[in-house]
Amino acid sequence: MSNPIAAIVLAAGKGTRMKSDLHKVLHPIAGRPMLLHLMASVDELSPAKKVVIVGDKAEQLEAALAGSADLAVQAPQLGTGHAVQQAEGALAGFDGDVLILYGDVPFVPAATMQAMIDRLNAPDAPAVVVLAFEPADAQQYGRVITEGDYVTKMVEHKDATEAERAVRLCNSGLMAAKSADLFALLSRVTDDNAAKEYYLVDIVNIANADGRHCAVVVTDPYDVAGINSRGELAAMEGEWQARRRVQAMADGASLIAPDTVWFAWDTQLGRDVLIEPNVFFGPGATIADNVKIRANCHIEGAIVGTGCEVGPFARLRPGTVLGEKAKIGNFVETKKAVLGNGAKANHLTYLGDVTVGANANIGAGTITCNYDGYFKYRTEIGERAFIGSNSALVAPVRIGADAIVAAGSAVTRDVADGELRLVRGEQLIKPGWADRFHDAMRKKKAGK
Amino acid sequence: MSNPIAAIVLAAGKGTRMKSDLHKVLHPIAGRPMLLHLMASVDELSPAKKVVIVGDKAEQLEAALAGSADLAVQAPQLGTGHAVQQAEGALAGFDGDVLILYGDVPFVPAATMQAMIDRLNAPDAPAVVVLAFEPADAQQYGRVITEGDYVTKMVEHKDATEAERAVRLCNSGLMAAKSADLFALLSRVTDDNAAKEYYLVDIVNIANADGRHCAVVVTDPYDVAGINSRGELAAMEGEWQARRRVQAMADGASLIAPDTVWFAWDTQLGRDVLIEPNVFFGPGATIADNVKIRANCHIEGAIVGTGCEVGPFARLRPGTVLGEKAKIGNFVETKKAVLGNGAKANHLTYLGDVTVGANANIGAGTITCNYDGYFKYRTEIGERAFIGSNSALVAPVRIGADAIVAAGSAVTRDVADGELRLVRGEQLIKPGWADRFHDAMRKKKAGK
Amino acid sequence: MSNPIAAIVLAAGKGTRMKSDLHKVLHPIAGRPMLLHLMASVDELSPAKKVVIVGDKAEQLEAALAGSADLAVQAPQLGTGHAVQQAEGALAGFDGDVLILYGDVPFVPAATMQAMIDRLNAPDAPAVVVLAFEPADAQQYGRVITEGDYVTKMVEHKDATEAERAVRLCNSGLMAAKSADLFALLSRVTDDNAAKEYYLVDIVNIANADGRHCAVVVTDPYDVAGINSRGELAAMEGEWQARRRVQAMADGASLIAPDTVWFAWDTQLGRDVLIEPNVFFGPGATIADNVKIRANCHIEGAIVGTGCEVGPFARLRPGTVLGEKAKIGNFVETKKAVLGNGAKANHLTYLGDVTVGANANIGAGTITCNYDGYFKYRTEIGERAFIGSNSALVAPVRIGADAIVAAGSAVTRDVADGELRLVRGEQLIKPGWADRFHDAMRKKKAGK
Repeated sequence: MSNPIAAIVLAAGKGTRMKSDLHKVLHPIAGRPMLLHLMASVDELSPAKKVVIVGDKAEQLEAALAGSADLAVQAPQLGTGHAVQQAEGALAGFDGDVLILYGDVPFVPAATMQAMIDRLNAPDAPAVVVLAFEPADAQQYGRVITEGDYVTKMVEHKDATEAERAVRLCNSGLMAAKSADLFALLSRVTDDNAAKEYYLVDIVNIANADGRHCAVVVTDPYDVAGINSRGELAAMEGEWQARRRVQAMADGASLIAPDTVWFAWDTQLGRDVLIEPNVFFGPGATIADNVKIRANCHIEGAIVGTGCEVGPFARLRPGTVLGEKAKIGNFVETKKAVLGNGAKANHLTYLGDVTVGANANIGAGTITCNYDGYFKYRTEIGERAFIGSNSALVAPVRIGADAIVAAGSAVTRDVADGELRLVRGEQLIKPGWADRFHDAMRKKKAGK
Repeated sequence: MSNPIAAIVLAAGKGTRMKSDLHKVLHPIAGRPMLLHLMASVDELSPAKKVVIVGDKAEQLEAALAGSADLAVQAPQLGTGHAVQQAEGALAGFDGDVLILYGDVPFVPAATMQAMIDRLNAPDAPAVVVLAFEPADAQQYGRVITEGDYVTKMVEHKDATEAERAVRLCNSGLMAAKSADLFALLSRVTDDNAAKEYYLVDIVNIANADGRHCAVVVTDPYDVAGINSRGELAAMEGEWQARRRVQAMADGASLIAPDTVWFAWDTQLGRDVLIEPNVFFGPGATIADNVKIRANCHIEGAIVGTGCEVGPFARLRPGTVLGEKAKIGNFVETKKAVLGNGAKANHLTYLGDVTVGANANIGAGTITCNYDGYFKYRTEIGERAFIGSNSALVAPVRIGADAIVAAGSAVTRDVADGELRLVRGEQLIKPGWADRFHDAMRKKKAGK
Repeated sequence: MSNPIAAIVLAAGKGTRMKSDLHKVLHPIAGRPMLLHLMASVDELSPAKKVVIVGDKAEQLEAALAGSADLAVQAPQLGTGHAVQQAEGALAGFDGDVLILYGDVPFVPAATMQAMIDRLNAPDAPAVVVLAFEPADAQQYGRVITEGDYVTKMVEHKDATEAERAVRLCNSGLMAAKSADLFALLSRVTDDNAAKEYYLVDIVNIANADGRHCAVVVTDPYDVAGINSRGELAAMEGEWQARRRVQAMADGASLIAPDTVWFAWDTQLGRDVLIEPNVFFGPGATIADNVKIRANCHIEGAIVGTGCEVGPFARLRPGTVLGEKAKIGNFVETKKAVLGNGAKANHLTYLGDVTVGANANIGAGTITCNYDGYFKYRTEIGERAFIGSNSALVAPVRIGADAIVAAGSAVTRDVADGELRLVRGEQLIKPGWADRFHDAMRKKKAGK
């Protein structure tokens, strides 16, 4: 049986380069705050404890975590070692393996975390496991000096010898250690340096000085990329999207212009899905097989059934559920809209808080009037109903099966099955009126 | 006079990496199935015969080719040589030059095919002409070993010596041979190899062993790029689009962001056309001089006249014809809509199955109600007519020249020239009602 | 005190590679003609005189410059030296420093121009200052041969020795000289060359032959990039946009997909602005803090207040002013529309020539009917007013504070504060009619 695991997530940095009132680790990638990407990977290890170390904007993190992790405040902020020490209270009584992670390093795979834990529990029992990587350009990173997979020295770039600088293996900052070792080692870290900070990295050299082994696990640079600016945020979003697009195509979706399709972290796509250029998925989209999503769609919180056609220029908002072979056309918005199989709304329509029966046809320019300024109300449209163009359905209202609403009607009372409802003034005819109007206006315009 | 030409197009591969129910060679690039791109180039040589070798999904190819080529089924599938042999029946009685092509290698220029034919008919009369290319990375390809332009050996990468692997000239798989030579050579190919397949490439080595010459024609890697996955499909689409954009700009169109304009295979553009970002052309678009296409348009099957302005956010569907200086504005959809010179539909409008006279003005929110759930009907709008905003024109209906339709009217009967038509209820005034409603609702909301 | 400065801008080239009826230097980048980008930088030096040398299409330049610079016509066109000489008349009486610039080299920073002027006025008093750059590939450029910062020779690539060709410093064509020196030197340039042209560059070699010093100032290739084709225009647009996006992110805006956001030359962005993919800014947009611009928006001439949410699929046109926390949703167009704080127009709406009071709610499908085919009229909507969906407000019209317009109403007369206005026909009910219609139509369809 494996040891209990605790994750300490450092998130106390000020993130000043973001120039934002939003906490850095809450900036989203693929529609999800970066901290929650990390926590989802942490959760795959079923940790016994999760402690997030916060500084400013603690209330934002508290709201985002919603009780799923403990918070420990680091104030004042005296370095990474000091930050990790703030977790000691929350981990009182915990005896197991501790992972040290960073809220702004969101894409560490769970498998990599597990590899660190596994290495920590290998027979040679290292005191600390360091996660390292080989960046394309090592310039700014601290180096990890190794013999085999043992770390013999951690050295900052500025303090490194020329030989050490030639080493490409760099410190990601992520570590694993037994809880007992970790806090014992941290208690011996000093702030005897130029910045007067307590550096986490020093525990490796201290352990080595004690004659303990420290081991390295090496991972891909993408896995430990940190985000410190909106430029890096956009770059990481781009990298995430690029990988997701490749996966989508490999799984059987056609993307005419992959670079212009943006997925959310949880987008699900079926087989033989066609996606034209410039489609944006917010969270919560599930697209079944054989769906055609035409250009310029915006889809979030929507379940799209087999064989549907969506767009171009469609917006599916949360609560949209489309049955098989339903069609949502251009300049159509749906929200909390459940459409039956084969139902169609092809043009210039707003469907909000509505149920549409199978094979119903919603004419161009139809509006469900679901809001009176105070409350929202529902519209129900029966199977095979035909809503004439430019109609307003004033909710709460029910349109029966096979019913017809005449074009231009504002329907305020229920329409029975098979009924025709027509709400319209008389056709007032004024022969020659337009001719006289044109004459008058032309004169007026000329007189200007 | 030149010999008759036959093209054999191999399209029997299963295309499993596409993960699609659609035959691989029917996946479109620039809005046209890749097989039809190839066939169009083949047709430039005026071939006497075209034979497509099919395996699975033959009915899809049959439908796509619509009788324009013979089909021969390869079952079971015993290799490329065996595939070509399946054309022997369809070519019974044919005596001429045979090109061997691949349905998933769609962009072989006709000029390259012609160069292969020309080389085949040179005075030295090679038995086989091999089309070769020099890829950036030769790794996976069979090598073409040459002396001058004679092929001395075709060798698979795995069987190649180190010296042969250093050769960069690779086999595209495309070949040309006289029909008599081709089938005679193929009959001598054996399946004496690890895969137990009959390889087309072996005809070269057999011909050489007979003391016949085989010649090479070298082409650009793009011309012989094959498509085996949706990733490669998207990459080829991207490359095709990149070349088309360069051509569009060289011909006198301005693309603010070329990477976000997608052309169809048959898009035609005039001079001094401006295209803002994110414009998608489906097949059948012809854009005249001095047209301005603003951002986020979706255009297919539409003829756009000189000096028109389209978009942003316009969708022109098949059957749209815009006269000179017509304007289609934002959130407007047209389908089978013929607009005269200077006609305008600037906002939130659906124009379907309609003729609009010159200089007519279609107000915001106008809908042509062209469908009753069973049949489609036409609307005719006269010259200089003015359709007030939010009107519904219930087809079949005719609006006369210079006529005016008042805002919000649902017009169900013809409007004469110069007439005003107004369809509207009385202005029902309820003083103070809204104030009382607000009071009641605020209380209700507070009571929640 | 510094000398007076004159700028001579060469813009007489035919620009044939543009294939355009628009003068080359008027093709826009980031929504502004390239010539005006250059003139704006020139203006930072507060020049005493600006002379633009024109050939064809002089009237276009005259209109674009609108009197802000003198024009001198070069006809016939006998080379760059001859072009500069055409400014002599316009500069009669001027005695100071002259900058020679090019209308198709639009992004020379003012600081670079100033550096040239400063170098010209250094104690060693060079006769000519040459602006040079080091391109990635020097191939086509004339080389600047130097000793220290003195130019010893200007040599065309074709005339250069092998040693000279190895020099990477290239001539941008931009120069500075004292007016007296400039025209004296130019008068000694001959057309004794293959093209029979008077080359500006020759003044350097002539000055050197006189024993005068000529100095070089070196700048970034981007700063002196010239535009000769629509491909180069698009490339420069791309480079400009790339730099602007980096700046936007550094200043505190989040761009999910930076490559799909296009700024205008004067776009202003606040802090914590979020921009989803595919947003296009035309000129004149000012976006305050905490604004969220969702995907697929088109924004020009609009002032967007703090905390607003715009889009997806919104179009803000010139004259749009949004108060704090206003909302413009999908498929909504605004033009000359001033919205108060918290006002909302969320769906399928056209707001033109309108004032909307704070916290008013504009229902889906609302149209302000601001045009009668001849004149435009205004609509005023009061605070907290509620416009029911699918309404048409026929301007000129005023909707009072707290007033309610019922869904589907075409309002032609003012609505008082707190009033309900309802314009609607009776609910005409025809039981069973739709059933009978369906039966008849199904038969008709089957009979086809």
